[in-house]
Amino acid sequence: MIKLSKIPTKASKGTSKDDIKIKTTKLVQEIGHLQHALYAESKQALLVVFQGMDASGKDGATKNVFSKCGTIGTDAYGFKRPTSEEFAHDFLWRVHKLSPAKGFIQIFNRSHYEDILIQRVHNWIDNKQVKVRMDAINAYETLLEKDNNTKVLKFYMHISKERQREKLQKRIDDPKKNWKHKTGDWEETKLWLEYRKAYEYAINNSIIPWTIVPVDQRWYRDFTIATIIRDTLKNMNPQLPLLTEEDKQAVIKIQETIKT
Amino acid sequence: MIKLSKIPTKASKGTSKDDIKIKTTKLVQEIGHLQHALYAESKQALLVVFQGMDASGKDGATKNVFSKCGTIGTDAYGFKRPTSEEFAHDFLWRVHKLSPAKGFIQIFNRSHYEDILIQRVHNWIDNKQVKVRMDAINAYETLLEKDNNTKVLKFYMHISKERQREKLQKRIDDPKKNWKHKTGDWEETKLWLEYRKAYEYAINNSIIPWTIVPVDQRWYRDFTIATIIRDTLKNMNPQLPLLTEEDKQAVIKIQETIKT
Repeated sequence: MIKLSKIPTKASKGTSKDDIKIKTTKLVQEIGHLQHALYAESKQALLVVFQGMDASGKDGATKNVFSKCGTIGTDAYGFKRPTSEEFAHDFLWRVHKLSPAKGFIQIFNRSHYEDILIQRVHNWIDNKQVKVRMDAINAYETLLEKDNNTKVLKFYMHISKERQREKLQKRIDDPKKNWKHKTGDWEETKLWLEYRKAYEYAINNSIIPWTIVPVDQRWYRDFTIATIIRDTLKNMNPQLPLLTEEDKQAVIKIQETIKT
Repeated sequence: MIKLSKIPTKASKGTSKDDIKIKTTKLVQEIGHLQHALYAESKQALLVVFQGMDASGKDGATKNVFSKCGTIGTDAYGFKRPTSEEFAHDFLWRVHKLSPAKGFIQIFNRSHYEDILIQRVHNWIDNKQVKVRMDAINAYETLLEKDNNTKVLKFYMHISKERQREKLQKRIDDPKKNWKHKTGDWEETKLWLEYRKAYEYAINNSIIPWTIVPVDQRWYRDFTIATIIRDTLKNMNPQLPLLTEEDKQAVIKIQETIKT
């Protein structure tokens, strides 16, 4: 049972920022190469889920960790408030169709988990409904892993209350960050504890495990995530497909019929 | 009237590769900054269409020119043979829904033009139908530009026959490129002249103009495309939205109600 209050939001003391940054650059490069092979192979997929409180660095992680991945082959989707059409369907309807095809990396910035987080915290659904949805989420993620060679990685962006406030304030004070400001985010901070409880439920009741990422320091956040993505892709071991002798002979036959 | 045989597929003699590469790096960086502003602003969009013969470097251009753009905010879609569901609809049905939302850059690797290229060259449609489709394409692109603040940039990747053959052969000879090989591409090379005629028709009958990109040299290709993308984005002049004094006062009121 994970208890978020017991887990640090920072790197342990003595961790060298400079070392970590050098390592991260290397990891990000490796992720780029592995993504290329994944795309060329087209037999496996990767779904990356980023969840966390407002200002916990989901956008930044998406930008940095996948910066060497191809635009073709890597998609990121930010889930917003559902449209009225989406609301008229079950909560997985809009999510399912965004699952990655084989060969692809799909990044979810927020995800199907919102439907047992924001909806629960505001009491738009009761606990019985939360359980129904949790079961549906487990079934969906298991389907991807067991039936479509899709590895599912879920990251909880673990930020401290103080750091969150600082970052939200910066969106007001720094004109370059004004565009990220939403007045409603400040209202939501009042529900900090309720959100944490809802996250703990989701994390503790998931079949596919989560990684709790300490995100108070951006450099340590990127390192933690990049390490897991790199290790996972390496383990998936995507292979560039090769032509057989037969394939090559087939081409030669066609080439002979081509007038120059 | 554009006649492709009169247009060079290479940089003019004396163009310095080293100079061009330095300039391209700078352009690509600028495109990254401008894309960030476009996304933050969320009032305008950019649709980039890459069309060209097999092995003309559409993938490479996508990868290189947009390498500093955010994964969120930049999407690339490669059009393949339509599914049976797609075939059962008009040819723009699958295309229209992929148009970029405001704030986004959408890259089409192949596009709606295939429906007056491959389909025409193989005589799957007659000239009357080609005209109907060309009109529909013009209407669609005009709609995006005039009614949804979407700038449409179309690049014809102009490769020489010799260079195409070399590149297709490399896909057979270099194991790292084997995954890109399709035997059918060699069959299509027999239709070189027919394709060129079909491209000339599309280019000469488009309302929104094309850029003919000399692509025999990869470095010159990337430079040509990056220059136009940078100039276009700069001209669109996306602005980071700023908070007003009123916005700031509204937050302060909420902050006063938050217990720490």
